[in-house]
This record gives sequence, C-alpha cells and structure tokens, in this order.
Amino acid sequence: MPLTHFDSDGQAHMVDVSDKRVTDRIAVAGGYVKMARETFDIISEGRAKKGDVLGVARLAGIMGAKKTPDLIPLCHPLPITKVSVDLTLDPDLPGVRIEATVKTTGQTGVEMEALTAVSTAALTVYDMTKAVDKAMEIGGIRVILKDGGKSGRYEAS
Amino acid sequence: MPLTHFDSDGQAHMVDVSDKRVTDRIAVAGGYVKMARETFDIISEGRAKKGDVLGVARLAGIMGAKKTPDLIPLCHPLPITKVSVDLTLDPDLPGVRIEATVKTTGQTGVEMEALTAVSTAALTVYDMTKAVDKAMEIGGIRVILKDGGKSGRYEAS
Amino acid sequence: MPLTHFDSDGQAHMVDVSDKRVTDRIAVAGGYVKMARETFDIISEGRAKKGDVLGVARLAGIMGAKKTPDLIPLCHPLPITKVSVDLTLDPDLPGVRIEATVKTTGQTGVEMEALTAVSTAALTVYDMTKAVDKAMEIGGIRVILKDGGKSGRYEAS
Amino acid sequence: MPLTHFDSDGQAHMVDVSDKRVTDRIAVAGGYVKMARETFDIISEGRAKKGDVLGVARLAGIMGAKKTPDLIPLCHPLPITKVSVDLTLDPDLPGVRIEATVKTTGQTGVEMEALTAVSTAALTVYDMTKAVDKAMEIGGIRVILKDGGKSGRYEAS
Amino acid sequence: MPLTHFDSDGQAHMVDVSDKRVTDRIAVAGGYVKMARETFDIISEGRAKKGDVLGVARLAGIMGAKKTPDLIPLCHPLPITKVSVDLTLDPDLPGVRIEATVKTTGQTGVEMEALTAVSTAALTVYDMTKAVDKAMEIGGIRVILKDGGKSGRYEAS
Amino acid sequence: MPLTHFDSDGQAHMVDVSDKRVTDRIAVAGGYVKMARETFDIISEGRAKKGDVLGVARLAGIMGAKKTPDLIPLCHPLPITKVSVDLTLDPDLPGVRIEATVKTTGQTGVEMEALTAVSTAALTVYDMTKAVDKAMEIGGIRVILKDGGKSGRYEAS
Repeated sequence: MPLTHFDSDGQAHMVDVSDKRVTDRIAVAGGYVKMARETFDIISEGRAKKGDVLGVARLAGIMGAKKTPDLIPLCHPLPITKVSVDLTLDPDLPGVRIEATVKTTGQTGVEMEALTAVSTAALTVYDMTKAVDKAMEIGGIRVILKDGGKSGRYEAS
Repeated sequence: MPLTHFDSDGQAHMVDVSDKRVTDRIAVAGGYVKMARETFDIISEGRAKKGDVLGVARLAGIMGAKKTPDLIPLCHPLPITKVSVDLTLDPDLPGVRIEATVKTTGQTGVEMEALTAVSTAALTVYDMTKAVDKAMEIGGIRVILKDGGKSGRYEAS
Repeated sequence: MPLTHFDSDGQAHMVDVSDKRVTDRIAVAGGYVKMARETFDIISEGRAKKGDVLGVARLAGIMGAKKTPDLIPLCHPLPITKVSVDLTLDPDLPGVRIEATVKTTGQTGVEMEALTAVSTAALTVYDMTKAVDKAMEIGGIRVILKDGGKSGRYEAS
Repeated sequence: MPLTHFDSDGQAHMVDVSDKRVTDRIAVAGGYVKMARETFDIISEGRAKKGDVLGVARLAGIMGAKKTPDLIPLCHPLPITKVSVDLTLDPDLPGVRIEATVKTTGQTGVEMEALTAVSTAALTVYDMTKAVDKAMEIGGIRVILKDGGKSGRYEAS
Repeated sequence: MPLTHFDSDGQAHMVDVSDKRVTDRIAVAGGYVKMARETFDIISEGRAKKGDVLGVARLAGIMGAKKTPDLIPLCHPLPITKVSVDLTLDPDLPGVRIEATVKTTGQTGVEMEALTAVSTAALTVYDMTKAVDKAMEIGGIRVILKDGGKSGRYEAS
Repeated sequence: MPLTHFDSDGQAHMVDVSDKRVTDRIAVAGGYVKMARETFDIISEGRAKKGDVLGVARLAGIMGAKKTPDLIPLCHPLPITKVSVDLTLDPDLPGVRIEATVKTTGQTGVEMEALTAVSTAALTVYDMTKAVDKAMEIGGIRVILKDGGKSGRYEAS
C-alpha cells in the first residue's frame, strides 16, 4: 500500500483532492501531559484561585488548529467550522488530559487539525509550568474519532 | 512556588526577561511516533527507495522550531542560532524516534523550541503515513537536556 | 442572553458554524486617527509631493484583513472575496478617516475582518507619522454595516 | 520636519537603525471598548461565573504584540522581552479599559507593539461580545508612556 | 485596458470576486536557477549520496504556495487542492529547472500560487548552495499554463 | 567543498552560528520583470495618474524580507535593521528593474532577505498587471553585494 503523500517517483507532493466531494467532516484527538504530584497540585489550586493554566492552553490549542497548514508541510488549507479543546485535571495520572474536536465542510479530513490542537495545548501546559517541573512528559497523542470522508468512520479501539 | 507566567493577581503575562543576561543556551528534546509493524516496514523501505518520510518530517521540525513564539502564547521571540532534528527508525518500538537540538544566544531558554520541533516532526510523520495507519501514537515528548541559563544545567534522569 | 463564544461550561471555543448556510456576506467598518494640525499638514502635503502615508496604510489594512483569524483567537478562517480600505484626510478632525469593506461567500460574517482592516490601517498611520507626533489617538472604530447572515442587516445608527 | 519612513525621494522604506544603540526600552499604550450597559453586565457576571472575556482578550493582546512586524509594514522585528496586558471593567464608561506594557532591549522603540497589543485585545473583546451588541466602539488608543531611546521620555499629557 | 487591482480612483484594492463562479482551476509555472558547473556537480553528487538540495527545495516550494496570500498584498486567500513542485538537474544550463502545478476549486486563479512555489523553491536552492557559489542567478519565472476561469485557457508560447 | 546546510550524515539542518561574531552586515540583490511594451506603458502612465504598481510592489518587497525565515526552511531568524526596495521603469527592457538593500547587526548574512525582497516585489508586479499581460517573465535575480561577515566582501562581476 503506497503512502499517498508521495507521487509515483517517490517525490513528496500535496495530494490532489480536487475530485473529492465537499462533505461535513469531524475529527477528535486526545493526549495528556504527565507531571509530578506537586506540579499537579499547583495547577489544581491555581485553577481555583489565580493563574488559569488550562484556560491559556485551551486558547493556544484552538489557535494552533488554525495554524496546521503552516506547520505540516503537505497539509491542505481548510475552512475550519468548529474547534473545541477540553482540558481536564486527572489526579490519577497525575496530569492534564486534553481532547480536541475539529469540524469542517471540505474536501479532506481534519484529524491533523485536531492532533495539532492537542499538541499545541500540551506544549502550552508544559511552557506554563516548566518553572516548577522540567520532567513533565507529553504523550498519548492519537486520533480518537474521524468521520465524514470517503474512507468512512474510524474509531480508536 | 509560583508559576512565573502569572503575575501577582494571577493574570497571564509574558515574563519580563529584560534583566536576564544574554548567554549561550542549548536545549535537547525527544519523543517518538509508535506505529504498526506494517507501517514501520513501509517507511523503512520507502526510505531506501522512494518517499522519504523522515526527510520531510525533519524539515517540518526545523521550521516548527522557528514558529514557537507564534504557537505558544507566552513564549518570547528568540534569535535561534541552530536547529537540528534527528529521526531514527527503531524496529523495537516499532516506530520513529525523534530528537531535536536548539541553540540561541539570548535572554531565555530554548526548551520550548526543541519541544515544538519534536512535536511538529512527529505530527508530520503521522500526516505522511496516516493513509495506511490511523492508530499511530505520539508520545515520550520531554526535555532531555537544558543548559546555559541562570537555573543551571538540567538533564533528564 | 449568552455569549456564543463560550460553551455551556463557560469554556471558550470556536463556535460551530457547520450548519450555517453559505451566503454572500458584507461588512463595513470605520474609524479615525486624530492628530495635531501640524501633523495633518505634513501628511496632506506629503500626499501631493512625496511620501504617501495613506497609500501604505491602505495596503496594510487590506493585508491586515487577511490576518484576522491569526489575530482574533476564536475567529473562523474565511475565504475573503473582496477588501477595500478608504482613507480620507479630514481637516476638521484634524486627521485621517478610515473605512473598510469586506465581502465573503461563507458561513459566518466578516465584521471582524473589516474592523481588523481599519485597526491595522490606523496603526500604520500612527507608525508612519509618530516621528513628528506621539500624541495621536485612534478612535471611533465600529461596525457601520453588516449584511448577509441569519441575523439580518445591521446598520449603525 | 520629515517623516522618517520615507527616503529623500518620498519612497517608503524601513528606516536604518543599524547605528542606533541597543538600549532598554519600554512603552505603555491604552484604549477602551465602550458598550451598552447590558453588555457590560454580561461580561461582568460572566467574569465571575463562566466565560472569561477579559482572559481571552488579554492573551490575544499578548500574542498580537508579537505579530506587530507582520502587521505594520515598516516596523522592525524586535526581540520583545516582556508583554503584559491589563483589562479592567469600568462601569462609568461602561466598558473595558485596556493597558499594555511592552519592553525590549533593542535598537528601536516598542510603542507600535504596545498599541498593537491594545488594538488586538480590543478587537477580541468586540468579537466575543458581538452576539449581544454590535454597536460597541473601540477608542482612545494612544501611547501613554515611551522611554529608553534617543528621543527621550514621552508621557501623554 | 485597466489594471483590475486599482479602483476607479486609482486606489489599490483586493478585487471583488464574489460573483465569479466556483470552478476547477489549474496553473503551471516554471523557472530555473543557473549556477557554475562546479556547483551543479556538487548538487548532482549530493543527490545520490548525501544532502538532498532538491528535496528540501521541493518542500519549500509546496509550503511557499500556501503562503501566497501572506506575501502578495492583493491576492485572495484560496483553498488549494493540490501542489506539486518538480526540480530537475539540467547539465546544459547548468542548473536546476523548477516547475510547479497548483489546483483549486474556487473563485479566482492560482497562477500566483504556482509562481510563488517556483520562486520559493528557487530561493531555497540558492540558500542551500550559496556557501559554494554566490553568483547563481534565478530566472525564467513565468506562467506556463492557466486554465479553468472566465478568461479561458492560457498557454505560454 | 561541502554544502553547509547538511551535516556529516547528509541530513539537512540549520547551521550553528552560535560562535559567529555579531557584526554589521549588508546585502544588495537585484532582478527584473520583463513585459510587453503595452504593459510597460500602462504601468508608466498609471504611475503618474492613478494606480501605483511600483508603490505596492515596493511595500510587498519590504514585508517579504521580514518573512524570509518563514519561507526558506534553513534560514536563521534575524533582527533586520533596514530594508529598502527600489523599483525603476526601464523602457529598454521593457519592464521593471528591482533592487533591494537589507542590513542587520547579527551572526549571519542577509542575502536571502534581499533576494526574497526582490522576488516578492517581482511577484507583486506580476500580480498587479497579469490582467493585461500573462506572458511577463521574472529574471536576473542575483546577489549584487554582500559584506560584513567572515567570508568578506562579495561583489557581483
């Protein structure tokens, strides 16, 4: 099975989607930032009192989704019609769980936009807490759901 | 210990680094993209013959490092003096391991630039192989080394 | 009446416009830069002779309209179909009056694009004349007309 | 007195600052968004409960400052060392007052960055509340303080 | 015959394309980088062994096409549906020949996107080889084919 | 002689300039847009009366110089201290001759910024006149002068 991002000579190109139908598409991606218990506590408390790490990261994730075609070389520019990014504190991790949902009405899917939103939100959580914890780890970034295109519905197992 | 990205009222701000010294700084970050064995084989073979996934992802990572202050809301713009991104095929993962090194001569560190380079390279690997494998997972994104600032040398354990 | 840019939990998100119809939309915004009489005279004369402040500001306004989704966090990217920016010298102000018109065929309105065009043109007028007048003031930035969407025609009173 | 953004032939150019000294520079700019009493009440209440308009606008302002050389054609790119944006609810306006402070260690001033931060924050307040009030007006955008360059300290009267 | 990028008063504006039909459009542009024989040999050999100048330039060209409305002031933003950039070594030049193909389904043509892809790829070839040859020359940048709009098919003679 | 943009394994990287000295650097680049006599006449006349093609292209060139590290993958971000772009009508070509001068105080040269300024200005001339002439050709883009770095002064012969 060939990688579609290369032509028959093996050269990278932006795939021709001219003949794909304009359909409603959705993608959901997830990920997390794992941190020390102390860092988790600082974010949790800050949330309530002052310094909303999750609010800043949510906004960064939403704006990140819009920058996807700038970041990913062979990604098509797309008129995104919805982005939401949810960040929740998970004391068992301990850390922050991130989920992003992106929709478009277009000729190609938005899973890269959802993944980029999650990545950017995760990087922003790291940036805002790195003064107290340099050992945080970003992981579990994957597509949870993708629907609306020719290849049908995909749900992560 | 406070989060420096919030002022005394808990409002997000870009930290004042005017009084920090201009020093040589370096940061190294790592991460990986885990995939199915079949996907791994396609990339490995493509490497040799046609369709260089790793070459495209490397370039995306380097360009991603330069976009860091656009993506991370409270990150300072910095005159980066070096970026390299190494991608290696790890058959035991199976998948691609990514390591990015960034240097600057400036007033603040470049670990966010190194992490953004790794993230962007990982997202690009996903983008270029998603036609054959939607279940890939990006993880292990962390700072491996940071040196050159007031807070001293940090090495991941 | 709720603010649509927040979901039911009060979290910021980019509103879902997937189900809105694609219609022709237009928005007109206005504003001004007020300045000292001497500054006004320099611009007026420069206009005729050399140094076209208004021409540079017009172009900055047009390009600014295209950057709107980069600047305004929850703004949808839109395929703009027309932008014009008019700058006129008003000796009674004294200063420069700015009016921007933006059109699209899309699922959401373009008043933010028109307002951003006016703001960017106004900031550029300031930038180009600040060597002679630091006390200029930008004001009166508002939507004059908006039409083409579900909420109907709006005209400033 | 000539406008420095034009050369001796009246052509726009980016002024040569090669020979200016690298000094610590600061600029403070202000502005406001005036709105209906009902809109003001919605923002005030949302602040406490759900939907933090001011938090989103603050972040947009900070990120806007970093985009200044992209927006203002003849503006020099600058390594910003600090940005803060304060938004306060003023029931007498009624509306939101915005003040931005920007610092750099460089060869040219940062008043355009401060003005752009204020403008972008104001536009974001408009965007987030336009569903309930289209007649809001952005105004009073001006430089309050500028210091650190050859031309000395400027304070708005 | 008037230049459409100016209105009836001679002011630059982004042309109104609201009433143009959404059609499939294609454009092909070409150009070259001419260099010393020694430089040509280094690129040719590097190709086979190590250092793929053409691969990096191809990617830069593809990403450049997406930045066209950021670069060209009066250019409309467009949802590009395909970009490919071919670079071939021409020993008779000696140098690199570049050809870019861009497609869209939209209201205006994509010849500027194709020309920008060629220009960016050419500049990247220069950047990557300038250490050994500063006298290279970029030339022959022109539209080879344009089709799909109201003005009909254009083929360079 | 090796190409510095590849490491010892032949992988593309952004060259390490950390140890290069901060010096005053300058680069001058040139190029032209060749066109039909009729097109040349339209621009020449428009110049005097209405529709200043050269003024718009000059501004695009200046802004293009600032976007160089966004466009050229392995280019370092640089604090540009001066950009000027001169466009002159050459009836013998017939067409427009473009020359750009860029200065910085930094660790690496600005010839890519000067070349990008020329390219962007040339593309803009094409964009603004393509309604009347699709056969224009951009050429002669080369470095005319480069000075201020370790490699000494270069002047095109």
